[in-house]
Amino acid sequence: MKASRLSDKRIQQVAVQRVEGPASSRESDCLAAEEPLEIRVEGHSVAVVMRTPGEDRELAAGFLVTEGLIYSAEDVIDIKHQPHCLTPADDKNGTLKSAEGNALNVQLRQPNALDLKRLTRHVFSSSSCGICSKASIEAVRQQFPPIEDEFEVDAQVILGLPAMLTSLQETFKRTGGLHACALFDLTGRLVILREDVGRHNALDKVVGWALLANRLPLRRHILLLSGRASFEMMQKALAAGIPFIAAISAPSSLAVEFARDSGQTLAGFLRGQRMNIYAGDRRLHVTERLMP
Amino acid sequence: MKASRLSDKRIQQVAVQRVEGPASSRESDCLAAEEPLEIRVEGHSVAVVMRTPGEDRELAAGFLVTEGLIYSAEDVIDIKHQPHCLTPADDKNGTLKSAEGNALNVQLRQPNALDLKRLTRHVFSSSSCGICSKASIEAVRQQFPPIEDEFEVDAQVILGLPAMLTSLQETFKRTGGLHACALFDLTGRLVILREDVGRHNALDKVVGWALLANRLPLRRHILLLSGRASFEMMQKALAAGIPFIAAISAPSSLAVEFARDSGQTLAGFLRGQRMNIYAGDRRLHVTERLMP
Repeated sequence: MKASRLSDKRIQQVAVQRVEGPASSRESDCLAAEEPLEIRVEGHSVAVVMRTPGEDRELAAGFLVTEGLIYSAEDVIDIKHQPHCLTPADDKNGTLKSAEGNALNVQLRQPNALDLKRLTRHVFSSSSCGICSKASIEAVRQQFPPIEDEFEVDAQVILGLPAMLTSLQETFKRTGGLHACALFDLTGRLVILREDVGRHNALDKVVGWALLANRLPLRRHILLLSGRASFEMMQKALAAGIPFIAAISAPSSLAVEFARDSGQTLAGFLRGQRMNIYAGDRRLHVTERLMP
Repeated sequence: MKASRLSDKRIQQVAVQRVEGPASSRESDCLAAEEPLEIRVEGHSVAVVMRTPGEDRELAAGFLVTEGLIYSAEDVIDIKHQPHCLTPADDKNGTLKSAEGNALNVQLRQPNALDLKRLTRHVFSSSSCGICSKASIEAVRQQFPPIEDEFEVDAQVILGLPAMLTSLQETFKRTGGLHACALFDLTGRLVILREDVGRHNALDKVVGWALLANRLPLRRHILLLSGRASFEMMQKALAAGIPFIAAISAPSSLAVEFARDSGQTLAGFLRGQRMNIYAGDRRLHVTERLMP
């Protein structure tokens, strides 16, 4: 591709035909970078995710937390980029060079405790019985305890988060092509923001950051999702112990069911002064509760 | 969950707290339904996807097409819902009943040709070398030929598609929580529209519909995506032979690279009278090409 890679590896610039009505012109456009990352544990390949480069160590760490493989920074000895398995002589197409940094190995403190069967994301996850909403929720609940973390946040704090996210999403502003996850404290102050072409990756990066900073579980925090809330996003939030999830767009039915079962608060459709609380409204302080 | 299931199984109604400024009231809201579907091939579980119920046979068929396991309706003898593996006596929680319809078995004409290793979605996909953009594209290209399907569409046809999608997305209108994929002919007439909580599923449903209707490969068609274009979405479109992909939002860098390598046309950022053409602009007819 005739693309020039900017110093920010999260962005690539490409030539495009810009069409406006009946006319078109040749211009250049910034795109969100997407590249594969192979996550290895003790040298075993456990996943290849399509991600926006940057914060790869956080992504790998967060992926393993949300898959239930590690729980604290103590569980990890090292996370390092690994070379491609080609030798330079094999690298006729320059593949080796461009793949630099696209494989990461995680070295665990207790590799013998590793249960590769737990790596269930999307595929081969539930090969026996239990294919219903309840069974899906129960399977997660066996791995991660429900949230017991009681507090109250003022509705105005939550309603103010989307505007903060918009002002902070640097790469999105330039590419229009990234999901974001942001973590806030209970006063609405930003703790960490991560962007990625994949929504799951953006959340894994936040969780991995928290693991590496020794801040898990993330009690007394609010997670803001730039898009929708699905079952998997709620599951990942639970794995990190996050009690309050706010999504700018709609939740799915199973996300709501999961939040109610897990003791999480779930807000959705944050638009200006309006939002819906789908679960755990005890954590939201409003001045006035109107009767229907 | 205190939810009443409407006659449309794609929608669930739940009670919510609707917050407006400092006040809140108890109301009800429609959500996009999300439930797991286990896809089995010859009785082997090959994937569990979180999907919006409805068009399950299409979803399973499309999933197998885009994974490169089947190529035509001839390859399939039958796609049938299978019972849960619990016996009714085990069904203390009503799990059995609610899981009805959440497992599908696909019976193949040539089960011996089945290569389960090909089922690569997301996990365990690329365990050896080749973790770079080029290698990812090459791996797909070994499986699916590039598009050789030449024609010209008027830019006005493409610019008119988003408005049609908006007017057609029935379930989205009620829930705000669904992705859509729509297939159009070269005059801009709708062929098929599918919605799902997962964007990959929406596309798999379109492709599965085409397989079951004996319409693969989908030459001389335009695929409209309600969201962004990623590597995986382009790969699925190529598996179905779709030459022209238009995304209402941004493409990723790898989606553009993939489209250029595969002979696909990729349009993005469709907004009113404007859009960008990222690849294959020979298929787009504009009245005037301005010089930069």
